Amino acid sequence: MWVYELSEKEGVLEKGTREGEIEGKVKVKVLSSGINRRDIWIKKGLYPGIKYPAVLGSDACVSYENKTYLLNPNIDWGSNPMVPQETYSILGLEHDGCFAEHVWVTSDRLFKVPAHLNIEEAGVLGLAGLTAYRALCSNCKVTKNDRVFINGIGGAVAQNAMLFALAIGCEVHVSSSSGDKIEQAIQMGATAGCSYKEENWGKNYKKKEGGFDVIIDSAGGRGFKELINLCNIGGRIGIYGGTRGNITDLSPQHLFFKQIHIFGSTMGNDVEFHQMLELVKTHKIRPVIDTVFNIHDINKAFEYAVDKERFGKIALQHD
Amino acid sequence: MWVYELSEKEGVLEKGTREGEIEGKVKVKVLSSGINRRDIWIKKGLYPGIKYPAVLGSDACVSYENKTYLLNPNIDWGSNPMVPQETYSILGLEHDGCFAEHVWVTSDRLFKVPAHLNIEEAGVLGLAGLTAYRALCSNCKVTKNDRVFINGIGGAVAQNAMLFALAIGCEVHVSSSSGDKIEQAIQMGATAGCSYKEENWGKNYKKKEGGFDVIIDSAGGRGFKELINLCNIGGRIGIYGGTRGNITDLSPQHLFFKQIHIFGSTMGNDVEFHQMLELVKTHKIRPVIDTVFNIHDINKAFEYAVDKERFGKIALQHD
Repeated sequence: MWVYELSEKEGVLEKGTREGEIEGKVKVKVLSSGINRRDIWIKKGLYPGIKYPAVLGSDACVSYENKTYLLNPNIDWGSNPMVPQETYSILGLEHDGCFAEHVWVTSDRLFKVPAHLNIEEAGVLGLAGLTAYRALCSNCKVTKNDRVFINGIGGAVAQNAMLFALAIGCEVHVSSSSGDKIEQAIQMGATAGCSYKEENWGKNYKKKEGGFDVIIDSAGGRGFKELINLCNIGGRIGIYGGTRGNITDLSPQHLFFKQIHIFGSTMGNDVEFHQMLELVKTHKIRPVIDTVFNIHDINKAFEYAVDKERFGKIALQHD
Repeated sequence: MWVYELSEKEGVLEKGTREGEIEGKVKVKVLSSGINRRDIWIKKGLYPGIKYPAVLGSDACVSYENKTYLLNPNIDWGSNPMVPQETYSILGLEHDGCFAEHVWVTSDRLFKVPAHLNIEEAGVLGLAGLTAYRALCSNCKVTKNDRVFINGIGGAVAQNAMLFALAIGCEVHVSSSSGDKIEQAIQMGATAGCSYKEENWGKNYKKKEGGFDVIIDSAGGRGFKELINLCNIGGRIGIYGGTRGNITDLSPQHLFFKQIHIFGSTMGNDVEFHQMLELVKTHKIRPVIDTVFNIHDINKAFEYAVDKERFGKIALQHD
């Protein structure tokens, strides 16, 4: 079977081959896969525990014994729903991932594809859907009466969080540096949005639009204090990324007088994966795809993946 | 009836009088009261919404119709267990508080004193016990298998949190700038402790003693990152104060990779007050008292209250 593998930091993905069987796992044919930010970080060498050569790719829609499945990217989460056990990993590092002709997984990683999704949509849902579900539903425990703010609507987890919150019945607002992305979010059901570039943007947006009960963030950084300003008393903030670096001025007084809860999370457990799929199925939610590439153009796809104008996932069609 | 009232920022408490009745409330005789850090902040003028003249004092053991009660300092929390309603206040600002001969409260603020407590202990438990309970039990959901770290064991909330965690069966470690206070905590049941003054103290203490599942903090500041270092994967941090100012270098990556939850809280709802008293009763927990003053020496008591060497509450005996 062929694979695309990364042999060094910042390298290109080169076609290689893998032979042999893996005990306890089944070999499934990859129909489509998706690029995650995780793959981009690993390619740059900026991820804990990288080993070369690596076959990346955590998400896929696959075929096994003439049926189509979607992969759960968790490997060995373990029995504690709150945190993964030490042996936990994510498909695509250290286990060979989905940018390949076939992938070896335990059969309990195969989940039925919700009927309304096409092969490309099923192949980009797993990791970002799971991360969004844990942050929004398990941690922030969003309900339909919550006003939800998604900070930075350009990312796939953010977009899934928006779609999930809308499906649940929440009023959702978003931020972006791009007016176009805010417009696209509004077309998908968001009420309104704002730029996070201006000074005091959070305070000003709260004055204009009111406060928020649930805020989903992947930036951190100096702007995090504006999320605290945006936050209602009793608000919950789910954070799953840190593209803007360390949070530099978080007031404890704001945290405790406003009774704010901050939940760090990444990925989610297998029960959450199942619940996420149920939510997607019930509300016929479709993950946002920007572009579909052929798997053999994977290096082009990675180049395009860092384009800031993109809105939605990059899917890869396998032959 | 006489009261001790504050007429200006940084003023002394002067004896005055109050007359008249308050509709819907009962007049109860104060047997003992206690000074909280809140009273000290108000006296300094550093608290939201101060109005002069103010009769401070949120905690008391009282007598009403020949029975002894302990006061719940919450006024009008409202129906949402997560957050108080807008009309919420704490006894002692804006409603006249307990540094007085009598205090007017609604009769549902009167709680039976756990039998093992003396009058002074009952008069210092309420506010600090409630705040500790919400942070430790409701928010961090501590269980006996959790390793607990209390940052800054000098404060009353911290001491109650330690006592509650010990009663629940946890292994508890503490920090302080004072070796004496660490020693006192160990005598009360803590396993060990460390100074928070050294560079990298959290990282070093984790190496030596292992990580912690639940951390209780009232400092914030630059040192908060050491609490993140101390924290186990899946750890919970309850923060109810900010004596060291803004948190200045909180890594989002640490928050989400370690699945850390941070809970800001202050006070707690009426159900939590009841639960706190049950815990105190069941385990015969006694709040720590440093010194008992006579109420008429209240200005001396306030001067002593800021003494950094003190370990435990300052109780005030009323005539």
